[in-house]
Amino acid sequence: MCDNSERFTRAEIDFSNLFARDLLPAKNGEEPTIQFLLEVVEILTNYVRKTFDRSTKVLDFHHPHQLLEGMEGFNLELSDQPESLEQILVDCRDTLKYGVRTGHPRFFNQLSSGLDIIGLAGEWLTSTANTNMFTYEIAPVFVLMEQLTLKKMREIIGWPNGDGDGLFSPGGAISNMYSVMVARYKYFPEVKTKGMSAAPRLVLFTSEHSHYSIKKAGAVLGFGKENGYVPLFVNATAGTTVYGAFDPINDIADICEKYNLWLHVDGAWGGGLLMSRKHRHKLSGIERANSVTWNPHKMMGVPLQCSAILVREKGILQGCNSMCAGYLFQPDKQYDVTYDTGDKAIQCGRHVDIFKFWLMWKAKGTVGFEQHIDRCLEISEYLYNKIKNRVGYEMVFEGQPQHTNVCFWYIPPSLRGMPHGDERREKLHRVAPKIKAMMMECGTTMVGYQPQGDKVNFFRMVVSNHAVTKSDIDFLIDEIERLGHDL
Amino acid sequence: MCDNSERFTRAEIDFSNLFARDLLPAKNGEEPTIQFLLEVVEILTNYVRKTFDRSTKVLDFHHPHQLLEGMEGFNLELSDQPESLEQILVDCRDTLKYGVRTGHPRFFNQLSSGLDIIGLAGEWLTSTANTNMFTYEIAPVFVLMEQLTLKKMREIIGWPNGDGDGLFSPGGAISNMYSVMVARYKYFPEVKTKGMSAAPRLVLFTSEHSHYSIKKAGAVLGFGKENGYVPLFVNATAGTTVYGAFDPINDIADICEKYNLWLHVDGAWGGGLLMSRKHRHKLSGIERANSVTWNPHKMMGVPLQCSAILVREKGILQGCNSMCAGYLFQPDKQYDVTYDTGDKAIQCGRHVDIFKFWLMWKAKGTVGFEQHIDRCLEISEYLYNKIKNRVGYEMVFEGQPQHTNVCFWYIPPSLRGMPHGDERREKLHRVAPKIKAMMMECGTTMVGYQPQGDKVNFFRMVVSNHAVTKSDIDFLIDEIERLGHDL
Repeated sequence: MCDNSERFTRAEIDFSNLFARDLLPAKNGEEPTIQFLLEVVEILTNYVRKTFDRSTKVLDFHHPHQLLEGMEGFNLELSDQPESLEQILVDCRDTLKYGVRTGHPRFFNQLSSGLDIIGLAGEWLTSTANTNMFTYEIAPVFVLMEQLTLKKMREIIGWPNGDGDGLFSPGGAISNMYSVMVARYKYFPEVKTKGMSAAPRLVLFTSEHSHYSIKKAGAVLGFGKENGYVPLFVNATAGTTVYGAFDPINDIADICEKYNLWLHVDGAWGGGLLMSRKHRHKLSGIERANSVTWNPHKMMGVPLQCSAILVREKGILQGCNSMCAGYLFQPDKQYDVTYDTGDKAIQCGRHVDIFKFWLMWKAKGTVGFEQHIDRCLEISEYLYNKIKNRVGYEMVFEGQPQHTNVCFWYIPPSLRGMPHGDERREKLHRVAPKIKAMMMECGTTMVGYQPQGDKVNFFRMVVSNHAVTKSDIDFLIDEIERLGHDL
Repeated sequence: MCDNSERFTRAEIDFSNLFARDLLPAKNGEEPTIQFLLEVVEILTNYVRKTFDRSTKVLDFHHPHQLLEGMEGFNLELSDQPESLEQILVDCRDTLKYGVRTGHPRFFNQLSSGLDIIGLAGEWLTSTANTNMFTYEIAPVFVLMEQLTLKKMREIIGWPNGDGDGLFSPGGAISNMYSVMVARYKYFPEVKTKGMSAAPRLVLFTSEHSHYSIKKAGAVLGFGKENGYVPLFVNATAGTTVYGAFDPINDIADICEKYNLWLHVDGAWGGGLLMSRKHRHKLSGIERANSVTWNPHKMMGVPLQCSAILVREKGILQGCNSMCAGYLFQPDKQYDVTYDTGDKAIQCGRHVDIFKFWLMWKAKGTVGFEQHIDRCLEISEYLYNKIKNRVGYEMVFEGQPQHTNVCFWYIPPSLRGMPHGDERREKLHRVAPKIKAMMMECGTTMVGYQPQGDKVNFFRMVVSNHAVTKSDIDFLIDEIERLGHDL
């Protein structure tokens, strides 16, 4: 670990007379730069510390108009003249103060939660490196990390030798869009140059509970949502957003093979279960897919954004998306230009999403991700067992959840004797939003709710943060009962 | 600045026996967590310090196979078992060591360069907050910052009262794709549900020198590239990628108005000039556009990624893209849900790209961005004046550049007497790649090159880093001449 770098020492500096222009590259800017960054780090490490402290609230809720009017010392408006670095530090502190602690062990609101320390360090480094994935030239290490990590993911999917292709994209919706684009290109390559009129009217198949991004991709890419046309693409969801259900991939693959359709598995949420020897059977048949979406930023606890699109056929991403921009992808560079990934993407510049994930994998090992997955599923099983027969709870779907999604209604005492019918439905529909609003006002916990089909608003609990313990689950249940008792 | 947060103190810790599992949320994990993060910060602040030190190289070049084989102590392969935190710190240091210093004052390779300290602090905070832009619920402060900043940008464009809409997207290519999608929705809204068959065959107009993302959007969205169909959309480029040329927006707007076409201005690169009273005339007429792409991560020196798509008509992004996912965009929340932005996007989760930009704006003020722009253009004017009549240089296009792009051939002495013709062309074509390869091997500087149309490989210099001084330009010229003299 020896190098000639200096160890920093902190100094008391008066930032009220310093401005951005006094930092590097300004002359003598080095010391204020280091001290300013250390002040920021102090704010951040205090935030990290408190995020894991259960006596800290999950959020300090304010309405939009309150924040817009300006809180004491915190004003969102931009102005012509610079603010002092002291004010900038206050702005940083207040931005965190009025935000939501998504890493708090009692934040259950989204599929992505938690604050992994190694992942966080990875993100700090990524932003310091401030580069772009499009060429090996300016991101040599990150490009190779991406390549190795995607190969590892393909091996875990079960594609022979981990062959194939892939990219990290800005999120699951874009990854799913890639899958539809590549399928279209595979069957109707001339669409790339001639447009959709070069293909018959095509349709995509996906389940009602699948993520809306599949429909969105259909709309964006010019498919529409009509019935009666030529089937092209089938999406099987591995872990639906609300129920956490896994479509039977093998059964769907049989049909796709019979009719020569592209099979995509949307494992944005459920893909992480591939890391667990105990749970990966829920994705049996995934090796038969043509493409897979898998978001490490969800179930694997990697910081946002980190989503992969993986494609079995090598070269098809390039074929589908290449435009051969001469100013970026010069064929006469001195290195092997097959490492330039930019022309495979629909983006030009592409953010470095790989490093934090690679670093977490190094730090935890494959076994560490397995433990993470198994633990989160165990916690949600604890929740399920705790409430499935508890007075005041009704489960939304039958049987044990396949993923960490536990969907339930809390029935306040006033509704418990009421006959089933429209009046009860209407009242029950209002329960979850009311409890949620109170949770947010109190700042004690956050959990999502929604209606689905003909089912009125219910809570959807999910666990993807390895900081969550059984005591947090107990707390959540107590809190729901405390807030909902008199509704 | 008083709060009850603790000031950190550094301790000597032996990380060789510590692992990721010993950090928070582990019991007693707080101290190792803070100390680990401080070690990372030491690595990062040393990197920052050296980035601005001209005695440090821009890069330490290695070929892909060299990095893949593994450098001493640095191995990219992932394994089943965890590595110690000591090794993780080495991995962090080596990742930076073998990367490219895009903030170095002699890195001129891409439109995005520089390392703004305030922007960097903003990114560190963003990754610590680790949240998602789709709802006010989990990103209240960031959602409002985005709204206010986009409004400010629309005011600067010149749309009345700054009205309209917009989003930060993962990059200029996606922003440009939004513009085409919204245009299609405006004229043929039924494409959203019925697909491209609901519209006549449509074409997009853009110039030969425009960015390839416009063509890519055409391919993705199912337009194709054929002639002879119904015109829908015209892209005017404000700052082309290679020449930095500005299309005459007013002339194009006249035609668009006459024929009722959507006018998009791709100001990904040139949009920043709107901040300068001296240079904004180059975008005259931009207020007549229907949509504008503007990437603060290019000319304004904001860290990657930070790209805005701005749309004049309010509500059309929502109309075009909404799918009303019940689990995210519940209408019965306790706050004003018009602040939930997710349904306007083609993404579901969306990374927080606003904070670093907002913080930089606070810290510099509007005037600070103006100074940044004016300074970069001044530096590139210095370069232009220095080489336009210098022996051994030929300019690629006539007259003074409109942006910071200075495009030129370096003619080695051996080619100076040679008659123009194929042999000279072929030899000259190889000069820039050879010099570039030597630059990278030496690690002293980086500048891009490319052919364009019938023009053989030439250098494209761009300046967007405010750390660049005239002495760096002198250095670049000396270095080109040193490396190219004997070719």
